[in-house]
Amino acid sequence: MRQLQEKLKMARGEAPAELLFKNARLANVLSGEIHPANIAVTDGRVIGIGDYEAERVIDLEGAYLAPSFIDGHFHVESSMLTMPEFARAVVPHGTGAVVIDPHEYANVLGLDGIRYVLESSKGLPLDFFIMLPSCVPATHLETAGARLTADDLALMIADERVAGVAELMNYPGVYLGQESELAKIRAGKGKAIDGHAPGLRGKNLNAYVLAGVRSDHESTELEEAEEKLRLGMHLLLREGSTERNLATLAPLVTPHNSMNCSFATDDKLAGDLVTEGHIDHCVRKSIKLGMRPITALQIATINTARHYRLRNFGAIAPRYWADFVVFDDLKKLVVRQTYKKGLLVAENGKYLGGPVEIVPQPRSTINLRYRAADLEVKAGPAGKIKVIKIVPNQIVTRQVLAAPKIVAGKIVADPSRDILKLVVVERHRATGNVGVGFVRGFKLKSGALGSTVAHDAHNVVVVGTNDADIRRVIEELVHLRGGQAAVAGGQVKAALGLPIAGLVSDQPLDEVIEKIAGLNAAAAAMGCELEAPFMTLSFLSLSPIPELKLTDQGLIDAVHLRKTGLYA
Amino acid sequence: MRQLQEKLKMARGEAPAELLFKNARLANVLSGEIHPANIAVTDGRVIGIGDYEAERVIDLEGAYLAPSFIDGHFHVESSMLTMPEFARAVVPHGTGAVVIDPHEYANVLGLDGIRYVLESSKGLPLDFFIMLPSCVPATHLETAGARLTADDLALMIADERVAGVAELMNYPGVYLGQESELAKIRAGKGKAIDGHAPGLRGKNLNAYVLAGVRSDHESTELEEAEEKLRLGMHLLLREGSTERNLATLAPLVTPHNSMNCSFATDDKLAGDLVTEGHIDHCVRKSIKLGMRPITALQIATINTARHYRLRNFGAIAPRYWADFVVFDDLKKLVVRQTYKKGLLVAENGKYLGGPVEIVPQPRSTINLRYRAADLEVKAGPAGKIKVIKIVPNQIVTRQVLAAPKIVAGKIVADPSRDILKLVVVERHRATGNVGVGFVRGFKLKSGALGSTVAHDAHNVVVVGTNDADIRRVIEELVHLRGGQAAVAGGQVKAALGLPIAGLVSDQPLDEVIEKIAGLNAAAAAMGCELEAPFMTLSFLSLSPIPELKLTDQGLIDAVHLRKTGLYA
Repeated sequence: MRQLQEKLKMARGEAPAELLFKNARLANVLSGEIHPANIAVTDGRVIGIGDYEAERVIDLEGAYLAPSFIDGHFHVESSMLTMPEFARAVVPHGTGAVVIDPHEYANVLGLDGIRYVLESSKGLPLDFFIMLPSCVPATHLETAGARLTADDLALMIADERVAGVAELMNYPGVYLGQESELAKIRAGKGKAIDGHAPGLRGKNLNAYVLAGVRSDHESTELEEAEEKLRLGMHLLLREGSTERNLATLAPLVTPHNSMNCSFATDDKLAGDLVTEGHIDHCVRKSIKLGMRPITALQIATINTARHYRLRNFGAIAPRYWADFVVFDDLKKLVVRQTYKKGLLVAENGKYLGGPVEIVPQPRSTINLRYRAADLEVKAGPAGKIKVIKIVPNQIVTRQVLAAPKIVAGKIVADPSRDILKLVVVERHRATGNVGVGFVRGFKLKSGALGSTVAHDAHNVVVVGTNDADIRRVIEELVHLRGGQAAVAGGQVKAALGLPIAGLVSDQPLDEVIEKIAGLNAAAAAMGCELEAPFMTLSFLSLSPIPELKLTDQGLIDAVHLRKTGLYA
Repeated sequence: MRQLQEKLKMARGEAPAELLFKNARLANVLSGEIHPANIAVTDGRVIGIGDYEAERVIDLEGAYLAPSFIDGHFHVESSMLTMPEFARAVVPHGTGAVVIDPHEYANVLGLDGIRYVLESSKGLPLDFFIMLPSCVPATHLETAGARLTADDLALMIADERVAGVAELMNYPGVYLGQESELAKIRAGKGKAIDGHAPGLRGKNLNAYVLAGVRSDHESTELEEAEEKLRLGMHLLLREGSTERNLATLAPLVTPHNSMNCSFATDDKLAGDLVTEGHIDHCVRKSIKLGMRPITALQIATINTARHYRLRNFGAIAPRYWADFVVFDDLKKLVVRQTYKKGLLVAENGKYLGGPVEIVPQPRSTINLRYRAADLEVKAGPAGKIKVIKIVPNQIVTRQVLAAPKIVAGKIVADPSRDILKLVVVERHRATGNVGVGFVRGFKLKSGALGSTVAHDAHNVVVVGTNDADIRRVIEELVHLRGGQAAVAGGQVKAALGLPIAGLVSDQPLDEVIEKIAGLNAAAAAMGCELEAPFMTLSFLSLSPIPELKLTDQGLIDAVHLRKTGLYA
């Protein structure tokens, strides 16, 4: 790398720059306009905008040049990809940096999981900034693989790639002033403090903000988002695979408040990333919804960089990293080229990143025990049972009541009424904990589906029409050292191994997408009509999200955050 | 102070807040709108917005409530007031925080000057944040009382009230990559780095930004400001006593870039602060110029707080300080009340701040020697001489040529052509340095005016029609231990003592204003038509500002930053 003095000489025009991007229509997110410009780059940074000489000239011939996009909140584990394979998926879509919350890694592996993320995200044409998971385990109502305290967070907060403390999902803990939660905010040491407060309004929301939380990505209604914005929260407009709030929230965004907005995907499947896109999709959709392109581009770049203090990211100006996207049509906004620190790293959808050193996988994390009898549910004297009802494309669930189907004194699945058995088996420390409940919405006519991705504790979760297939799924997941599987009639119809923490595949992007498609096809063949049945399954044990959930500790009233019985 | 837990209880509405501001029309600079609100305050912070109970209720009856204003760049010495008396001047105008560059204190007293500023600005109903002076002395072409290196800045940068490194006035030094200047930027340790680059454009401006400078307050033309904004500089829209750029620059501001703008006064006299106002004047003027009120209010508050990372300043939302202004008309915008941390500190123009402990004054700083002959200028063989021409209301000067008036082989002042003698005497270390030149623009018919405020080295500067009165002025300034004086016919017509560093009065606001008025009246009686003759005088030795200046080292070509001869 050159000395700054040498680069200043180039900026002054006294020596040729390395590279000149000529004849750009620059999306200048700092001055809020699009104007013609030539941009000189040396050592991966913009060194000047103007009529420069350079050793190599890239003539953009009037194409648009914008800063690479930044995702303000993402759980990279939701892609089930390693860091290099995730880069392969999103870099062609123009993503240059991602603020990730390695919440799932941390739930399974604790600090070792965060260290693995930091290590395995180096050397890629995509920058990762880490928010330290603040709710591991998510609640006391589930058994995770690790527990992180404020002291643990304090160990890592000073790392230059750590941007703050991740979503404080235990929002009642925060607004009620629990010392453990306030200590996590203090551990942030002035860095960003992310929130997570679905539906939180009024005085409790005020208390949540007063405690120090300064962002939220969980608004699903316009008025909720408006209230959060008014109280000073940075709004992450979420558009993931399942949670899609952008269309609802976009009308709130004006040029007078857009600086307090970012795009985020939260959770997005590998296939969706590849086919639909990443933050580029958010920009496209926002423009379609009527947002001014420059505003959408600001939300996709500089606003996020500023909120999370990602120095020299998010704009095209001297000293900023030369992280660029090139596109030809401002409204269609299809990324044609992506540059990382001045290097072309994707073109026409093709990833051009080089090979990276593979960081050794963490230890195997599938460690469970259970007996067949644990899956059985004895029938009670009388009355209806509580059934988890899926809300399509949402992570919230509803509680509905139904008469149980009883066979030989046991409550069993009743596919004819779409009431299936749901099982959660603890898989970190072989406690033998097994939770059993019932769920409506999968519409399986036969077989069972299972996953070791199961927010947030990531125990084994299985939905099925019969116990034999449920047991067969669990057997397969152990065999895979973690993964997802579809079983019918005792046969494995499709499977995806996720040996990295039971969350992430060690295989290439294409293979992961293909196997996920296989799993979905298998589920569909078994009668399931959900778009993303395994993602839906993986959220059924997420105890902090209303209304009714199932963890290894049993049925959870997720409104009042307490265990609850099966019978109403 | 209460524990956070107790305040959270109030925020949740489970205990009454201390104070409720009821029926406000809240200028919400975060959501970019004005909406009705009730704001609860405890221990000086906003704890909630909503329908709260409180021990004391202030009914605003529909008046506007906005965050207190913030000045993004100010030299408090320009008011010639102590910190408490400065607060008395600006708090009634709604100022809640000021980012100050104690450049003059530092030029005279070095680190002791900065420490004095930090100490003497505590306990006031006005928050001061300090930018560490980066150019002491301003150039090698003048003799200041101190020299600050990057190592000196590094000693103080971590102070929580230090917001960064102040204006890098040696902009050629920066863009040319002088190690001493780059070291000062590195000493900023990631805090804000302020620029100062009048007229700097094109490639050298790119280099200046590349070096790490991220703001500027010196733009006097629209295109210049546009270029700076496009390159990522935070624009400080300056409106001081002399430098008034707001009307020129306001057309550049759009809702799409206003987040990168702040208001600043740079230098403003006590009388102007009292009668015209401070940042409230900038807001009023911007609205008159056609800016949307909420945009002007954002520029006056949150934008500045964010750029300088003044935590919990600049907005009204939970956790922010309860620094409020109340006004009744959004367009007239006359501040009726100012609150500091929930306390009423000014009302209807009257300052209500309590008495503060007086911090001991620094040592006396007037230490000079010269002989009468030093003031004389021998005539050369022939030719015209260079004369500094004042540009009214600007700190730039022009160089004009004129035939010298020669008497007894000496070049003397010629009031009939408005060519007066200008003298600068070094006053810090009694070097005996005396610079002599000529100036056009004062129009004195008799007498002399002198000042120990003389940017940036603050040596003694005197303009006069004859040497006797010039000497009498110097005598008076020594007697006052620093100050400003007007002398005619050997008589002191008016004087203001500035015993604190030779820059600042130890007297109350009213008396300072009265004495300044007396000085101006005396100057006017002597024929001067300038609005602020002593401010104009004080900028004539500012060597980094074009075109022609005079320091204790002689005439300075301020375009090329080198000494120059009197004859053309």
